[in-house]
Amino acid sequence: MATCDFTTSLAGAFPTSSNFSELLCSKFSQLDDLNVATKLAVDNSFLLFSSYLVFAMQLGFAMLCAGSVRAKNTSNIMLTNVLDAVIGGLSYYLFGFAFAFGRYESGNNGFIGRHFFGLKKLPDPVAGYDYSFFMFQWAFAIAAAGITSGSIGERTQFYAYLVYSSFLTGFVYPVVSHWAWSPDGWLSPLYKSPLFGSGAIDFAGSGVVHMVGGIAGLWAAYIEGPRIGRFDADGNPVTLRGHSSTLVVLGTFLLWFGWYGFNPGSYLAILNSYDSFRGYWTGIGRTAVNTTLAGSAAGITTLLGKRLLIGHWNVADVCNGVLGGFAAITAGCSVVEPWAALICGFVAAWVLIALNKLAEKLKYDDPLEAAQLHGGCGAWGLIFVGLFTNKDYARQAYRDDMNYGLFMGGGGKLLAAQIIDILVIVGWVTALMFPLFYLLHHFNLLRISMGDELKGLDVTIHGGPAYHDGDDTF
Amino acid sequence: MATCDFTTSLAGAFPTSSNFSELLCSKFSQLDDLNVATKLAVDNSFLLFSSYLVFAMQLGFAMLCAGSVRAKNTSNIMLTNVLDAVIGGLSYYLFGFAFAFGRYESGNNGFIGRHFFGLKKLPDPVAGYDYSFFMFQWAFAIAAAGITSGSIGERTQFYAYLVYSSFLTGFVYPVVSHWAWSPDGWLSPLYKSPLFGSGAIDFAGSGVVHMVGGIAGLWAAYIEGPRIGRFDADGNPVTLRGHSSTLVVLGTFLLWFGWYGFNPGSYLAILNSYDSFRGYWTGIGRTAVNTTLAGSAAGITTLLGKRLLIGHWNVADVCNGVLGGFAAITAGCSVVEPWAALICGFVAAWVLIALNKLAEKLKYDDPLEAAQLHGGCGAWGLIFVGLFTNKDYARQAYRDDMNYGLFMGGGGKLLAAQIIDILVIVGWVTALMFPLFYLLHHFNLLRISMGDELKGLDVTIHGGPAYHDGDDTF
Amino acid sequence: MATCDFTTSLAGAFPTSSNFSELLCSKFSQLDDLNVATKLAVDNSFLLFSSYLVFAMQLGFAMLCAGSVRAKNTSNIMLTNVLDAVIGGLSYYLFGFAFAFGRYESGNNGFIGRHFFGLKKLPDPVAGYDYSFFMFQWAFAIAAAGITSGSIGERTQFYAYLVYSSFLTGFVYPVVSHWAWSPDGWLSPLYKSPLFGSGAIDFAGSGVVHMVGGIAGLWAAYIEGPRIGRFDADGNPVTLRGHSSTLVVLGTFLLWFGWYGFNPGSYLAILNSYDSFRGYWTGIGRTAVNTTLAGSAAGITTLLGKRLLIGHWNVADVCNGVLGGFAAITAGCSVVEPWAALICGFVAAWVLIALNKLAEKLKYDDPLEAAQLHGGCGAWGLIFVGLFTNKDYARQAYRDDMNYGLFMGGGGKLLAAQIIDILVIVGWVTALMFPLFYLLHHFNLLRISMGDELKGLDVTIHGGPAYHDGDDTF
Repeated sequence: MATCDFTTSLAGAFPTSSNFSELLCSKFSQLDDLNVATKLAVDNSFLLFSSYLVFAMQLGFAMLCAGSVRAKNTSNIMLTNVLDAVIGGLSYYLFGFAFAFGRYESGNNGFIGRHFFGLKKLPDPVAGYDYSFFMFQWAFAIAAAGITSGSIGERTQFYAYLVYSSFLTGFVYPVVSHWAWSPDGWLSPLYKSPLFGSGAIDFAGSGVVHMVGGIAGLWAAYIEGPRIGRFDADGNPVTLRGHSSTLVVLGTFLLWFGWYGFNPGSYLAILNSYDSFRGYWTGIGRTAVNTTLAGSAAGITTLLGKRLLIGHWNVADVCNGVLGGFAAITAGCSVVEPWAALICGFVAAWVLIALNKLAEKLKYDDPLEAAQLHGGCGAWGLIFVGLFTNKDYARQAYRDDMNYGLFMGGGGKLLAAQIIDILVIVGWVTALMFPLFYLLHHFNLLRISMGDELKGLDVTIHGGPAYHDGDDTF
Repeated sequence: MATCDFTTSLAGAFPTSSNFSELLCSKFSQLDDLNVATKLAVDNSFLLFSSYLVFAMQLGFAMLCAGSVRAKNTSNIMLTNVLDAVIGGLSYYLFGFAFAFGRYESGNNGFIGRHFFGLKKLPDPVAGYDYSFFMFQWAFAIAAAGITSGSIGERTQFYAYLVYSSFLTGFVYPVVSHWAWSPDGWLSPLYKSPLFGSGAIDFAGSGVVHMVGGIAGLWAAYIEGPRIGRFDADGNPVTLRGHSSTLVVLGTFLLWFGWYGFNPGSYLAILNSYDSFRGYWTGIGRTAVNTTLAGSAAGITTLLGKRLLIGHWNVADVCNGVLGGFAAITAGCSVVEPWAALICGFVAAWVLIALNKLAEKLKYDDPLEAAQLHGGCGAWGLIFVGLFTNKDYARQAYRDDMNYGLFMGGGGKLLAAQIIDILVIVGWVTALMFPLFYLLHHFNLLRISMGDELKGLDVTIHGGPAYHDGDDTF
Repeated sequence: MATCDFTTSLAGAFPTSSNFSELLCSKFSQLDDLNVATKLAVDNSFLLFSSYLVFAMQLGFAMLCAGSVRAKNTSNIMLTNVLDAVIGGLSYYLFGFAFAFGRYESGNNGFIGRHFFGLKKLPDPVAGYDYSFFMFQWAFAIAAAGITSGSIGERTQFYAYLVYSSFLTGFVYPVVSHWAWSPDGWLSPLYKSPLFGSGAIDFAGSGVVHMVGGIAGLWAAYIEGPRIGRFDADGNPVTLRGHSSTLVVLGTFLLWFGWYGFNPGSYLAILNSYDSFRGYWTGIGRTAVNTTLAGSAAGITTLLGKRLLIGHWNVADVCNGVLGGFAAITAGCSVVEPWAALICGFVAAWVLIALNKLAEKLKYDDPLEAAQLHGGCGAWGLIFVGLFTNKDYARQAYRDDMNYGLFMGGGGKLLAAQIIDILVIVGWVTALMFPLFYLLHHFNLLRISMGDELKGLDVTIHGGPAYHDGDDTF
């Protein structure tokens, strides 16, 4: 601690007052500098560790996907999860991040970003963006690709995967995230003239991440059709059980763990200096609680609902129910009260059950239920926001004149914005991904041959089965 | 940075002194506000990330339990682990947290809390409780239920699980945590007139969490008796090996990882502003080191001890030894020196070995050794605190007149309080859980039929085996 | 908030100026104390959570190793991973940490530390070392031992493991870390008269951790020779496939997750008070990004390279490629630009492919490719630093007159220091570990018998196989 003494500067009375003032100012200025440094350290630490948790979700997806497919396709689906991260690392660095958040001093627009290619001009004190923000957004981008990998599992050519995955992470997803999350985005509450006065709320991405991944998966799985044997000669559904419940539970818990980075971390900062009792710290804690409660409510609802419908207590169904609750609460996790999170999860469980029934009726086959879960529960999550958003929480997290939920007395403007949000996401993803999958299909580049499907992808293109129980020659 | 200039206010000398004073005060007041916001951000960040680590322990329990049972009961035991979290989410939100920490402006008592039902009145500036505190305590509550799931593995009806688990997480456990950890709790060092002058020390819950879960498991496993085949016709023990050492190691390491949230996180805050060199930061680091050393000492002791006793190097035994060391150090992790943590772990390993021997003698069967490990090593941990607590560390973590360890020159008062702590936990859990399990047993609601046990729970009530090596029809 | 009022002290004008000064000083002094406490809290929190992530790498190693060996040796290799942590806990506490970082008021030297045995004199305000620093360094020490376990998998006596592992963690590794990372170390940029004016850069340990572990493994695997069946009668290589790709992917993702503690955490602190815009926060974020990009580039290069060379898309190869990219970027992660990280990863992938080819030519067998990956890519990482280090980043992370990369216009001094770094590490580890392994081999204490190798270690010395698919007698 430096010694501190103003006695001298004050002793000669006030011809010396400017001396005294300078000394005092330099003390305060040092403290101000230190406080800026502290805020940067605290917030970057919060954002980086949140990013690491979101990254752990990729491991969760890999294990969940592996456990949900048959043993003969395990290496295949895990390789797509590894490549989501690896290819996403390159493409999001080269251009994805630029499309999403590339705003600079001037010339920004509401549709797409156009700065920061290859991380040029970072850190950017103008927009407040730094490397930790890139890390967080990269981890989000690869999650979207991970969702789609699930829908097309067990029957898709590897080249098709490489094509759609790069396109999704590098362009389709970044543009949607620009609309919803960039201060320039036309759907964002932070936009200068936002939709219906205050824009749409998709706090951590029920639409941006989950619907984008789910809708892309929907079209791919629809176009290539169900796996061989998924429906019998009479068209009745046959369960093709995943090869390991242990991996399903492992994956689900890892996703749950990582969701605590995904949702609370979406505040991007925890030190909101202007007013400690309206600060982010309490909103971040509430977001974690809401996430937990929505997943819990969805899990119990699924347990009991499925017991009534199918007659046994199914662990994989409960896992998917929990994840459906999470996908739904992701949009509104920061702006609703805990009791509303329970409603969100309860409804999400029934949305998932109903969509799974519908998928069987329509002979739609999605080995991970990814389109139903991420697409369907994600859309419900956006509507839920329009109904239950709390006025104070929304204004704390966004802007002082934010619209809020219909059932909370806030009128229908927010709900209208949320519905438009859903429609444009469905439209955008369909407009880009449907033609892509259709073309791949048309040129026989989408689905593997019947022979390969029966043998399994691991043996046919990945060099051998995922498991070796025996001892080779020895 | 705002420009800072007092020259004007001082120039006219001292009729203007009140101007100057106001200006100066407003600068300091801004800094004070910012410092409050910083403390809230730093402490909530610390507590939330610690909570996420504690939550990861639930995944650890799931994998450890799965690996320790036979393949035919894998889905069953994992479903209980998922439901511990999910049911715990609801019941702890609705009333568990209220029973444990529901203190408010007046009318609090030492036995049970009675505010905050459904998280009403949070955040509470009076008691300093916020959502992040709820997250941390919820993650603890579900850990207690997870311990009991182990003891009753492979032979218990699912309805019985649903009943005892809700009761344990929603009432039995919260009351004990109120006694030990609420500032109103009659066992707590923070109580206004604490037991023997300074109460009992159970820093992170060797008693509150581990003994509660372990004793509950003890009575359940005792009442329903050993698994078929666990003892042969002559009464000799037969090892029923778990189906996967890989899952045992995975679960153990995840528990180890999560314990760094459990023990150091129990400080609840890291920024202790009043005195940086008696601050929590160094205590938190020491707690992490003590935890590591106790587990390490117990692991090595088990490795060598078992090599002498059974003749081979057993990885599952070493894993259980490490966990026994953790369960024991949990009570005293913040208040002992590192060398004492080694003693704690060394003794814990022998406690576990001895109790396992005793269990075989008494034909007690616990597939996870959960009663022995969490109950037995947990009780040893509470006694250890009475013997080895360091005067300075205890006073740093608790109160200025804190009693300390018998072997450290602190007399027997703390040890006496620790023994009372053990007795009341054993008494309370027994008084509530023994009758519950006995009634379930009496009405044939506790144990599954012999036929179901031979076939395994996964096939009989969970819709099929956990693993599918084959390819269904295809 | 305390009320703040200087009016009285200023009212009587300036005989009372010393009163005023005292009051003012005490306010500033309180703020200074609080800022010290805040810095300690923020930095210890950052370092502890980073330590926990590094610890999670041990779980990653365990799963990667398990998946990469045949089922019959699974328990054996996992037990070595558990014991790396457990034995490392004791030996690093007793003397390893002292050898590495045991500096005190006087009498320190550049070769080895000699204070802090058994954590005496911690926390140490002189050197700024506290328990959290011990935690971080312990987690690093056990990683080095984990690498070597891989090289000698499936054929090594358990006693030999116990001997070399203690020696490596307790002495060989700590001495190298003293050279490179202690402010007294003769290779360190922080040394008073550093090598070639500014020492060698090994930020997070491509040399200290990865080369040390890899070179030790190289000699062990070389001396004991290949596994039975690894080369056929004509000397052609035969792939002995690991038993589970799922475990390989699980392990790889966990290592990736943990590397975010390993590399960014090596800053040791995030609040660098003196200048917020040259602060650590942005360097830490950049380090995380560089790590991600190097692993991604290496992963894609391996995917495509292996597709060309062996004709299929191999998930285990991609995993090893990613890890090779991480091992290489570890030395320079904080001092290069993101585009350079891509080059680092690209070359690392080819280094690994080439060394694996060479190993087959030389009939060298390493079940985890650990010597090639950690030794080879680690050495490339040290050279890469000599070529691509950015002037500003190096001076921000180290010293104001730091040398920088040859290709960045910095001349050859840094490159020369890096090469010396490689040579002394190879020399030191060889000088100590080669004789040790040779003696063990000479006295038949290194390799297991042919009969045991054919049966597998789990059955012969660990009490039974790792997996039990059946149901014992029941």
